[in-house]
Amino acid sequence: MTREQLTAEQAARLAKQLTWQQLADAIDRPVMWTIAALLGQHPIPVDSGKVLVDMLGLDEAAIPVLATVPMRGGLPTAVPTDPTIYRFYEVLQVYGGAIKELIHEEFGDGIMSAINFSIDVQRKPHPAGDRVVVTLDGKFLPYDWTAAEV
Amino acid sequence: MTREQLTAEQAARLAKQLTWQQLADAIDRPVMWTIAALLGQHPIPVDSGKVLVDMLGLDEAAIPVLATVPMRGGLPTAVPTDPTIYRFYEVLQVYGGAIKELIHEEFGDGIMSAINFSIDVQRKPHPAGDRVVVTLDGKFLPYDWTAAEV
Amino acid sequence: MTREQLTAEQAARLAKQLTWQQLADAIDRPVMWTIAALLGQHPIPVDSGKVLVDMLGLDEAAIPVLATVPMRGGLPTAVPTDPTIYRFYEVLQVYGGAIKELIHEEFGDGIMSAINFSIDVQRKPHPAGDRVVVTLDGKFLPYDWTAAEV
Amino acid sequence: MTREQLTAEQAARLAKQLTWQQLADAIDRPVMWTIAALLGQHPIPVDSGKVLVDMLGLDEAAIPVLATVPMRGGLPTAVPTDPTIYRFYEVLQVYGGAIKELIHEEFGDGIMSAINFSIDVQRKPHPAGDRVVVTLDGKFLPYDWTAAEV
Amino acid sequence: MTREQLTAEQAARLAKQLTWQQLADAIDRPVMWTIAALLGQHPIPVDSGKVLVDMLGLDEAAIPVLATVPMRGGLPTAVPTDPTIYRFYEVLQVYGGAIKELIHEEFGDGIMSAINFSIDVQRKPHPAGDRVVVTLDGKFLPYDWTAAEV
Amino acid sequence: MTREQLTAEQAARLAKQLTWQQLADAIDRPVMWTIAALLGQHPIPVDSGKVLVDMLGLDEAAIPVLATVPMRGGLPTAVPTDPTIYRFYEVLQVYGGAIKELIHEEFGDGIMSAINFSIDVQRKPHPAGDRVVVTLDGKFLPYDWTAAEV
Amino acid sequence: MTREQLTAEQAARLAKQLTWQQLADAIDRPVMWTIAALLGQHPIPVDSGKVLVDMLGLDEAAIPVLATVPMRGGLPTAVPTDPTIYRFYEVLQVYGGAIKELIHEEFGDGIMSAINFSIDVQRKPHPAGDRVVVTLDGKFLPYDWTAAEV
Amino acid sequence: MTREQLTAEQAARLAKQLTWQQLADAIDRPVMWTIAALLGQHPIPVDSGKVLVDMLGLDEAAIPVLATVPMRGGLPTAVPTDPTIYRFYEVLQVYGGAIKELIHEEFGDGIMSAINFSIDVQRKPHPAGDRVVVTLDGKFLPYDWTAAEV
Amino acid sequence: MTREQLTAEQAARLAKQLTWQQLADAIDRPVMWTIAALLGQHPIPVDSGKVLVDMLGLDEAAIPVLATVPMRGGLPTAVPTDPTIYRFYEVLQVYGGAIKELIHEEFGDGIMSAINFSIDVQRKPHPAGDRVVVTLDGKFLPYDWTAAEV
Amino acid sequence: MTREQLTAEQAARLAKQLTWQQLADAIDRPVMWTIAALLGQHPIPVDSGKVLVDMLGLDEAAIPVLATVPMRGGLPTAVPTDPTIYRFYEVLQVYGGAIKELIHEEFGDGIMSAINFSIDVQRKPHPAGDRVVVTLDGKFLPYDWTAAEV
Repeated sequence: MTREQLTAEQAARLAKQLTWQQLADAIDRPVMWTIAALLGQHPIPVDSGKVLVDMLGLDEAAIPVLATVPMRGGLPTAVPTDPTIYRFYEVLQVYGGAIKELIHEEFGDGIMSAINFSIDVQRKPHPAGDRVVVTLDGKFLPYDWTAAEV
Repeated sequence: MTREQLTAEQAARLAKQLTWQQLADAIDRPVMWTIAALLGQHPIPVDSGKVLVDMLGLDEAAIPVLATVPMRGGLPTAVPTDPTIYRFYEVLQVYGGAIKELIHEEFGDGIMSAINFSIDVQRKPHPAGDRVVVTLDGKFLPYDWTAAEV
Repeated sequence: MTREQLTAEQAARLAKQLTWQQLADAIDRPVMWTIAALLGQHPIPVDSGKVLVDMLGLDEAAIPVLATVPMRGGLPTAVPTDPTIYRFYEVLQVYGGAIKELIHEEFGDGIMSAINFSIDVQRKPHPAGDRVVVTLDGKFLPYDWTAAEV
Repeated sequence: MTREQLTAEQAARLAKQLTWQQLADAIDRPVMWTIAALLGQHPIPVDSGKVLVDMLGLDEAAIPVLATVPMRGGLPTAVPTDPTIYRFYEVLQVYGGAIKELIHEEFGDGIMSAINFSIDVQRKPHPAGDRVVVTLDGKFLPYDWTAAEV
Repeated sequence: MTREQLTAEQAARLAKQLTWQQLADAIDRPVMWTIAALLGQHPIPVDSGKVLVDMLGLDEAAIPVLATVPMRGGLPTAVPTDPTIYRFYEVLQVYGGAIKELIHEEFGDGIMSAINFSIDVQRKPHPAGDRVVVTLDGKFLPYDWTAAEV
Repeated sequence: MTREQLTAEQAARLAKQLTWQQLADAIDRPVMWTIAALLGQHPIPVDSGKVLVDMLGLDEAAIPVLATVPMRGGLPTAVPTDPTIYRFYEVLQVYGGAIKELIHEEFGDGIMSAINFSIDVQRKPHPAGDRVVVTLDGKFLPYDWTAAEV
Repeated sequence: MTREQLTAEQAARLAKQLTWQQLADAIDRPVMWTIAALLGQHPIPVDSGKVLVDMLGLDEAAIPVLATVPMRGGLPTAVPTDPTIYRFYEVLQVYGGAIKELIHEEFGDGIMSAINFSIDVQRKPHPAGDRVVVTLDGKFLPYDWTAAEV
Repeated sequence: MTREQLTAEQAARLAKQLTWQQLADAIDRPVMWTIAALLGQHPIPVDSGKVLVDMLGLDEAAIPVLATVPMRGGLPTAVPTDPTIYRFYEVLQVYGGAIKELIHEEFGDGIMSAINFSIDVQRKPHPAGDRVVVTLDGKFLPYDWTAAEV
Repeated sequence: MTREQLTAEQAARLAKQLTWQQLADAIDRPVMWTIAALLGQHPIPVDSGKVLVDMLGLDEAAIPVLATVPMRGGLPTAVPTDPTIYRFYEVLQVYGGAIKELIHEEFGDGIMSAINFSIDVQRKPHPAGDRVVVTLDGKFLPYDWTAAEV
Repeated sequence: MTREQLTAEQAARLAKQLTWQQLADAIDRPVMWTIAALLGQHPIPVDSGKVLVDMLGLDEAAIPVLATVPMRGGLPTAVPTDPTIYRFYEVLQVYGGAIKELIHEEFGDGIMSAINFSIDVQRKPHPAGDRVVVTLDGKFLPYDWTAAEV
């Protein structure tokens, strides 16, 4: 049984009409993390895996597979085609250079970590219509030429 | 004189040691917007253009060029190579599917607008090291099959 | 059962010799929307899904799958190879820049929405031969630097 | 002098603050055609070329170059990055298959010509905001296995 | 049953040792058209489909599938790898620009239609060895800015 | 002086309003060959080079450069964007497999040479409109496992 | 049964521990030709096909399939990833231009045929270690503008 | 002065009508190596560089540049378009897998070195026409899991 | 049974909760080599293959397949998407040119062999956190124009 | 003056015959860091910049440009063509999956940082020939779902 097969079987979620939030609550993890994990982007600890496998009616054999670190990368093409996802790629095309410049002006040379990182999506009100507010929150990592101790 | 030439001439910024924040303050615009505009991603109104051209010591002929809507898209390759920018592409690879699912669960079918949109980068503290917090804030646009009135 | 499988099963449409118009009429939706949805580009509400599943002789299990927001993007290659579809890509190559310039001259900086959007194909007469008239109709969205209220 | 150089020199248009409509009116041609031609996608007859060269203050040597059939194709990348242009590519991703199906259902096997073709952009009102209405109008060409007479 | 499956089943042709010419003769169509159609590039009218399905020993269910307009485009990669096919791509690399120039010099601005089109392959003698003579024969379509009548 | 520069200088042709046919006649070569050569796809013998350089008003230094075997390949992108050229690529997408099959059925395993090859474009009449008839004429080369004599 | 399936079944070769040389000897053909053919790059005459099918324990139905001219092209990606194959691509990157220049200096304008062609791999001794000597041997084909006799 | 500029200046070779063989003889190096080096694929020792710079009439400043190890890779596109070079890529497509298999059968697991390597092009006679015989000669390198001594 | 199938079956490793180190110890090979081999990048000698097949509970038929030299290349896309693997590609983007320059300054013209090569991953301590230390260790191969003895 | 121009001007290094080690010693920085920085991959502090500009005879205006954080990414193509650099890409193709697996087995889920990172190239002896030993040394970063403090 491969992870891909498991991912496919999550069609079970649809049949059982479980929301992502319900699955996240059941394992007491943030909903964004839970969705990413079930889409094959994060390993799921055995305890949580048991809960999810049970809720989704999957085979027990899925638990160790879910617990393995996956081969990450969820876009089927380098440039995404789905409009909801593409807008975030467009943000990179239009603001990527500016984000880089401002990080350097604020923090110096370095990056926002995508590993020591969390992400959140909130619905926020505005008189002209509710807004999708996505917060990317990563530790600043300065370029640092360091070597292990001999 | 083309916009590309103008962009190149912003090397003037480096020679004059002007920060992006100083340029943004001078035209009373958000710093992210100002950087994006000077990197060729937004048109700059004539009044603001005059101020910037003056600060940077550029030719007056640049003002109408800066005021024109540019051909947007600032990544030299479809997959960015610069590490500071790449991490945001990686976020899309790892969390793009989850962002999509959560937007749909929270709002229904639709997208976060990248046009009715603002973006902000903040430095926020954390005991384990300061964090880069990037906020993407776009109006939710539901899929809506509408036509002009006849 | 995945959406891809469903799409394949629409071969049922051919066997039953149902036209797209008949399917659209049955669910009282525009024919372009109906085709796009059945090709996996829009979610189909449960009520309509029941009607279509019934007409096409598909399994009831398909209904919740059809009702889910799909991963959009229907071209198998970035540049389409099918001549009927390619002509629209060619229009973009030849007139894309002009469309952009004219939108900016008429409306200012912004885009035609592809979300608050409808599309129609009509057969119109002409002495030299009937014409395919495709109308793309999207709300104008001005670039607008807005943030959610705090 | 190459056509590319001419295109670049149209920066003259910006300096002289001529609208595309003014240029189109001067040569009595549709504005979409005029923009496309000046962006290097259509040859410009000598009479019209003289008028445009005069208005833009270009060199007379440009006239025969403008009159030559150009190497068409105006997108710098296969998938456009500019948001205003990209939305039309997205329309192809989401509705390309449906357009094809509906053309075949309405007309039989064949295509919308992109050569015997005109395109128009209109601003149309709607209570929820004005709309960009783009009309693609091409002759239907049925697949027709014909050979020259011997 | 999908068209792809049908195409695969044409392996039946090999087992039954039927030539393409025999299949074309049976339906009284040009051999080039017949091969292209059976390779999934043209719809096959029901009458002809019945004949072919019978000769190849395929299932009756294939007939409506063969009669549907297919998604065209038969090269597995943008640049073909098969030497017999590649030579025609090479002809485009070496003579594509010249073909374009000569069409424009002979006919003015426009194209050779690939829709109102036929193609033929002949074996012709030459003292130094027989030659493959491929004739592409398409209607000239002049660029013509026409719109449907209102 | 590079061949690229020479090619560019052929803009001289436009300024002098010389047709390709006139240039071909002057060197007594087929017009398709002459255009291809002047577009940088064939070496031009010194005698012919002298004639062309003289007619076009180019520098004498161009003659040995024109006489050198060029690096062939005239399409700026793997898939051509110009509609007049693209139609020939489309022919390959739709008929490439059929051409291959018919060559093999008529000649056995092998190819049409693109080296021992000529190409011609003719205008031919038809009641429904004149046709572009392109004849590709290459020697059949059978796959032949041969080695030099030892 | 498709050729791809046959190729896969050649896993039979491994199970039966047959060397390529043994298979080549059995059909009295060069080993390089035999391997290429069994990897789907050449048609195998029926007599030889019978021998190979027998040795490999394949189904008789494979014989006509093996005898068909295949769709050639065996690299799964345009730039090969396997190190043993990549080195030959690297040779093209480093020496491709020089090979071209030397062929032109020695033979004039033309190519080495890859159709009237044989290839051989030999193990040759050297004090510093045995060497892989690959000999590509193709007929020189001069560019020759020839047409079929009318 | 960059290596690219030097390469371009080798147009001097054409003007002076020097053959590659004459240049190779002057520095007493194999002609294939000499061409590759002058096309920017190998460093040229100072002594040889002096000779070549003198023969070609280049600036003395070119000598240290020619002596530097270049950034190798001479194909402008991943798949070459020039027919003379393409045939070698085609050989890889058709025989790459067979070359790999035979190297492994003859030598075991490993590669032909493209570094400890020489290449030669010879004209060899054959009754049916002279042949281009290209010999690739590289040391066999077995896969060998070795580490430096501690 | 193909190697791909074998690779997939290694999911057996997960079910049996065997570490890579345990598998490597069982066949007395370095752990990096063992993982690479089981991921389809190296042939596994029959003796070792028997041990692994036994531990993993695979079919005996897998042993000769595992012993065959595989088609190497384990990245599903040219630019890897998995963050753990991508960082090594990023190292190439940022330091590739510097590695090349330093190899040439230290050793002269040549390469680090990736065939006569070993690789090791170590965990090393550092006050600011443990470090991943990857050692690439390949024989220096100087560019050496050598031919087999005649 | 752009960074690209500066990089080009480093041709000054060749003319002055300065080694990379001499430049590194002059600014008291590791040689790998120094080369990467001068190839445009790291900002160079003003003090070091002054020293380098002086040694290389560059313009003073280069100093602030060198001090700016560059747009990183030094490979001209996604897959490198230079053999010395390519071998490292090949290592990723052959061992990338194994590196990932071993990092996860040794450290758990996470990555080797390429930011908190140093790299070293050493010449190490071996009886069969000296070896290039490249040490990549990056801090282990565990996947850690953390957010800034509110």
